[in-house]
Amino acid sequence: MPAISATLELAQDLIRRPSVTPEDAGCQALLIERLTALGFTIESMPFEDVTNLWARRGSKGPVFCFAGHTDVVPSGPENQWTHPPFEPTLKDGYLWGRGAADMKGSIAAFITALERFIAENPDPKGSIALLITSDEEGPFINGTTRVIDTLEARNEKITWCIVGEPSSSNSVGDVIKNGRRGSISGNLTIKGVQGHVAYPHLVKNPIHLAAPALTELSQTLWDEGNDFFPPTSFQISNIHAGTGATNVVPGTLSVAFNFRFSTESTAESLQERVSEILSRHELDWHIDWSLSGHPFLTAAGDLVDAAHAAIQEVTGLETELSTAGGTSDGRFIAPTGAQVVELGPVNATIHKIDERVKAEDLDTLSSIYERILNKLLK
Amino acid sequence: MPAISATLELAQDLIRRPSVTPEDAGCQALLIERLTALGFTIESMPFEDVTNLWARRGSKGPVFCFAGHTDVVPSGPENQWTHPPFEPTLKDGYLWGRGAADMKGSIAAFITALERFIAENPDPKGSIALLITSDEEGPFINGTTRVIDTLEARNEKITWCIVGEPSSSNSVGDVIKNGRRGSISGNLTIKGVQGHVAYPHLVKNPIHLAAPALTELSQTLWDEGNDFFPPTSFQISNIHAGTGATNVVPGTLSVAFNFRFSTESTAESLQERVSEILSRHELDWHIDWSLSGHPFLTAAGDLVDAAHAAIQEVTGLETELSTAGGTSDGRFIAPTGAQVVELGPVNATIHKIDERVKAEDLDTLSSIYERILNKLLK
Repeated sequence: MPAISATLELAQDLIRRPSVTPEDAGCQALLIERLTALGFTIESMPFEDVTNLWARRGSKGPVFCFAGHTDVVPSGPENQWTHPPFEPTLKDGYLWGRGAADMKGSIAAFITALERFIAENPDPKGSIALLITSDEEGPFINGTTRVIDTLEARNEKITWCIVGEPSSSNSVGDVIKNGRRGSISGNLTIKGVQGHVAYPHLVKNPIHLAAPALTELSQTLWDEGNDFFPPTSFQISNIHAGTGATNVVPGTLSVAFNFRFSTESTAESLQERVSEILSRHELDWHIDWSLSGHPFLTAAGDLVDAAHAAIQEVTGLETELSTAGGTSDGRFIAPTGAQVVELGPVNATIHKIDERVKAEDLDTLSSIYERILNKLLK
Repeated sequence: MPAISATLELAQDLIRRPSVTPEDAGCQALLIERLTALGFTIESMPFEDVTNLWARRGSKGPVFCFAGHTDVVPSGPENQWTHPPFEPTLKDGYLWGRGAADMKGSIAAFITALERFIAENPDPKGSIALLITSDEEGPFINGTTRVIDTLEARNEKITWCIVGEPSSSNSVGDVIKNGRRGSISGNLTIKGVQGHVAYPHLVKNPIHLAAPALTELSQTLWDEGNDFFPPTSFQISNIHAGTGATNVVPGTLSVAFNFRFSTESTAESLQERVSEILSRHELDWHIDWSLSGHPFLTAAGDLVDAAHAAIQEVTGLETELSTAGGTSDGRFIAPTGAQVVELGPVNATIHKIDERVKAEDLDTLSSIYERILNKLLK
């Protein structure tokens, strides 16, 4: 291994490009250069202000895909960083910089794993693809979901997909995400009749009227989860009523809530059950719903087996399958029928000041990726 | 009766003085001139920026007192008034101007009733007093309550008190207030543990925790009222939690509430019962209480009888005893043991643009006051 590995070198080149969502800042051009050299066919798929890349090598199935994003979240106050966020620094065994863990390190590991694998296997038994976007951290409207729409429209399928999200907890490979909960939010408005507190017979207090329904919503067991998912959870994040005047009963109550839901529930079933509760409490209510993602799950199969074995062989760790945490672009890929697993570096510093990743972990990750390729495509 | 009665003339002189709280703007000087001529002893009792007047004629008991305020609420946009708010105008049978109904008209009627009564009864069987403040519409900290404190400190008692608040609904004298509900407010804070909605096991959602307690508070029957008071009412006026972010469970819930309470409850009993409910629901709670006024009631007695009969004799109306509506300075006077009744003009336009009172009603009111004096002190 050289003083600086090819993976670390590429990761640094990517971090140096300040690609805050939706900017790509030349990251994908760097990847295109390397992928073209490997024989990939490059399709740029820009949508609005988002830069997307679909690269494929080979035409036959099965299709193995690395998915990821070149965009990063903003650095926050640069003067609070130990090292400048967009000047990658190798120090104390770590690679420091915005995107080191989420997820320019993973992308560098994709590329170097592919370079070694293709050098040894110029004619693998299926196709290899990369799906890269510059809008995973943002509104995710013109990113992965639109690339998937394009592929679906021409019936181009992904068989196995590794998303490079930083899935690991303490040590690279200790956790992989084989699914994610769904997320659906609601903005609930409950109407009453405004008036003076001194004349209670003339008002309908929407806070009083709503309290029993909010109690029931917060105490309902929506499902019990399953082997892969914890029970669906309901949380009210915001509640507001009143103008500040203490002698006025407000006319309206606003409540924002969110479900993180398992595959035992569906967005539709939750919407129906909430409606039933509110109507049973005889409220004058309205909800604006917003679905962020259906839940997805890759319970078992070649991909989970390959990732599990590769991690064991490279690191000696028994990886843990998890569906915890926020959502990811895997939610757009899984519904096409692909097996999807998230596997990437330790996530302790993501989105924070002093984001960093152990330098040796990126090489380990590249080795794990390479071994998975070997297991599935050799 | 002259083209413009003495009562209307004095009311106009008072309205012309723009005495927005806490300003007196020379109103009390005008009263002092008239009261001095009637043989009253004048005590000015200024506290901070508030002008107060205690005038008394006679030293023996019983003590009859007229209580009122020279301050008025702001006019609002003057260009929306049909006639300028501080230029009293007699038009269409009404006296127009800020304070016409609340309560410079009543004060003028106090004075003219006294002038006629004393002319005929220079040596009545008790004392007569006036308690006038320039801060009834404001924070009411340095007004009536401090005059009462001063009187109490020297053991000077009021037997009967007529407060000139505009008590009438449709016709002068149709309603008198023989009490008022108490009012106590609370700012309730409920603490939880903030966190991300995706990790429900790490949060304690204060909205969820509070909902059952708020349900119980809003459904509790605090008392059933009595012959003079409706049941005590509890109203939440404001509820707030959340920063606007829809993926964050807030750490704190804020709730502002108010009780309007009958003489069947006390401020202390309500505070205890709220505390008991919150603690039984095992909440981490804190309340900042603010007592605006204890309830008071003059259920029956000489004063109610005299007012009832005087109104009947002057207007032919059977007056209605009521304790409804907001609170008044009567709450500071009644606890000394005084019988207290509010009797004043029709309140339809008080605190509004185009405040006005029927011109003839002020003369009627002056006659009613005179007749009450006759019944109690002749």
